[in-house]
Amino acid sequence: MATVKSAMREVLGHIQNAIYELDEGKVEQMIKTILKAKKIFIHGTGRSGLVAKAFAMRLMHLGFNVWVIGEIVTPPVSRGDLYIAISGSGETHSVIDAAKISKATKAKVVAITSHPESTLGKIADLVVKVRGRTKLMEKPTSYIARQMLGKHTTLAPLGTVFEDTALLFLDGIISELMIILGKTEKELKARHTTFE
Amino acid sequence: MATVKSAMREVLGHIQNAIYELDEGKVEQMIKTILKAKKIFIHGTGRSGLVAKAFAMRLMHLGFNVWVIGEIVTPPVSRGDLYIAISGSGETHSVIDAAKISKATKAKVVAITSHPESTLGKIADLVVKVRGRTKLMEKPTSYIARQMLGKHTTLAPLGTVFEDTALLFLDGIISELMIILGKTEKELKARHTTFE
Amino acid sequence: MATVKSAMREVLGHIQNAIYELDEGKVEQMIKTILKAKKIFIHGTGRSGLVAKAFAMRLMHLGFNVWVIGEIVTPPVSRGDLYIAISGSGETHSVIDAAKISKATKAKVVAITSHPESTLGKIADLVVKVRGRTKLMEKPTSYIARQMLGKHTTLAPLGTVFEDTALLFLDGIISELMIILGKTEKELKARHTTFE
Amino acid sequence: MATVKSAMREVLGHIQNAIYELDEGKVEQMIKTILKAKKIFIHGTGRSGLVAKAFAMRLMHLGFNVWVIGEIVTPPVSRGDLYIAISGSGETHSVIDAAKISKATKAKVVAITSHPESTLGKIADLVVKVRGRTKLMEKPTSYIARQMLGKHTTLAPLGTVFEDTALLFLDGIISELMIILGKTEKELKARHTTFE
Repeated sequence: MATVKSAMREVLGHIQNAIYELDEGKVEQMIKTILKAKKIFIHGTGRSGLVAKAFAMRLMHLGFNVWVIGEIVTPPVSRGDLYIAISGSGETHSVIDAAKISKATKAKVVAITSHPESTLGKIADLVVKVRGRTKLMEKPTSYIARQMLGKHTTLAPLGTVFEDTALLFLDGIISELMIILGKTEKELKARHTTFE
Repeated sequence: MATVKSAMREVLGHIQNAIYELDEGKVEQMIKTILKAKKIFIHGTGRSGLVAKAFAMRLMHLGFNVWVIGEIVTPPVSRGDLYIAISGSGETHSVIDAAKISKATKAKVVAITSHPESTLGKIADLVVKVRGRTKLMEKPTSYIARQMLGKHTTLAPLGTVFEDTALLFLDGIISELMIILGKTEKELKARHTTFE
Repeated sequence: MATVKSAMREVLGHIQNAIYELDEGKVEQMIKTILKAKKIFIHGTGRSGLVAKAFAMRLMHLGFNVWVIGEIVTPPVSRGDLYIAISGSGETHSVIDAAKISKATKAKVVAITSHPESTLGKIADLVVKVRGRTKLMEKPTSYIARQMLGKHTTLAPLGTVFEDTALLFLDGIISELMIILGKTEKELKARHTTFE
Repeated sequence: MATVKSAMREVLGHIQNAIYELDEGKVEQMIKTILKAKKIFIHGTGRSGLVAKAFAMRLMHLGFNVWVIGEIVTPPVSRGDLYIAISGSGETHSVIDAAKISKATKAKVVAITSHPESTLGKIADLVVKVRGRTKLMEKPTSYIARQMLGKHTTLAPLGTVFEDTALLFLDGIISELMIILGKTEKELKARHTTFE
């Protein structure tokens, strides 16, 4: 059980470092791009796709015209729209395909990735780097975690650190948008689905 | 932009408190229940539903027989199965309905909620309390956040704190299961979807 | 294999009867209601939910403001909106709940069901009856099908006839809307998703 | 309104022709392949994806180990598995990608398509041709439909005929599997989801 708390603290440590490294200028640009977009499309696959959806839902609560790529009623992208891709590696095939299509239709492309040098990173108009787990960070920082790991190299497997950090980062974007738009929590609640 | 980093740190602070408050005994019981289940069903609505899916995907990577309620090929629940509900308020209608059905079929019910005293909490065989935002915590702890907020009472609206904490908590459960089952990251990767 | 063709012909026979029984006045009213709605919400569960989605996608291609209940960016329902429920039995819990909420917010409720006398049927402002399999129809009409069935009472189990008929019916609604709105297939194609 | 019934009859006519053209030998082979598969993966995009899901749900009701590509808990494909792709054109990118991956892992690939000569058709181990709308068929067969159409060339836009026919065809496969496996409707109902 101590493992659960250790693993959570491990991830918190990674997120703290990732916050420190976030480029404030790029984040500012991302927020401006969101505010100017006609329609917004959010995209990711696997667990990054779930982070994409969590972000899209809050943008809807704030009143944006937003859709998730792959859902049923998602309209086509066109000039003046914004396509936001979430991919730790920046090499997810379907995300790269959609980014290329978006560029071709003159929509803006924003990439949230750990790898600005990736294929996605190179296509994007704007890259916000969100650090995932690095080689260095694979050694757990806490003593208890190191002891427990044995043959395990990490308590946060695969894309966990990137996904969890991306979720918190995009929730941070929502906070800033709330303040810019002067929206209160009550107003968000009024846009919450009536059905569940 | 400073808002984005402040909001992220705000949420990190909430998560740190939530980790501290996690009941180690209950978490231990939850892990034992997962290891004994014949089939596992995960459920949540809205953003809690996305957290449910992120957890289900990792359980699949670990080799568990796991399904998400509401997906296409999800089989019926039966005796010996485990139903895990994720609901901050513990009052989500569809989650309560499914919990009752699970109990009636002699499946175990585990609730991840901020409110053990809720309807869901009372139905569940085991409740793991994951603290969301409390009244007290609605005042942001950082000075800069308080300054920026103005009419806003929080930088983490609606269920944000619960959802983000639940995701990190369930990722912590995955870490402990990896160690118990002796699974390496490489083995998880081998169970990763071949398609994306 | 002859079974496959027999089963298909069996279902075609049911659909032909269902077309004959469709109430033209009610269908006319449904189309007028769709044309007047501010926002349209489509809903169903299980395979009826898939039919709901197939209909919603085409309404989007026609340019309507349409969402599927349960998807990520679905906004709340409000006065002047239209909620269309698809439920063979008219007794699906989550559909009844959503229909009640829609009525309470002064949205119109249209029910596509085999049972106008059901709970859903009674809530709805307008019911379009789409016949599913009736007791009488459970006896397969073709000789070869009767021969093959043995202990089986039907070649179209559970809601198959209702679901298949509802899909064709709603595709028929799309055809009429195309003509009323003067939309060509080419214009629909232009609204087709850019990503797949 | 007459349009709705005309359009439905138009589609029925197309389906009747498609049934006539179905290659019984290929369908027989498809059923044998399904019965031998260790795990079954179903895939399609857009409305063909909904048809894929409707088929997958019934296979689950029959007790098969079946998953839909793109859902949360879908495991990786491996040797001895079966990948069934549904694509009218046979040129859907993501479907072609997944078919190639499936071949590479020594899984069998079955294609349901109107175009056996397509990229997907060429990759597949087995192609079942399901006729969609042909050039010839674009002229509506009924007089009233021709009168109403005006500038419209069809009452069944885009992939409608293929999708509706594919749904009925795959429901026919389910009927034959029910008989082969000796499953009654009651047994299917027992595998129906407990939650909705």
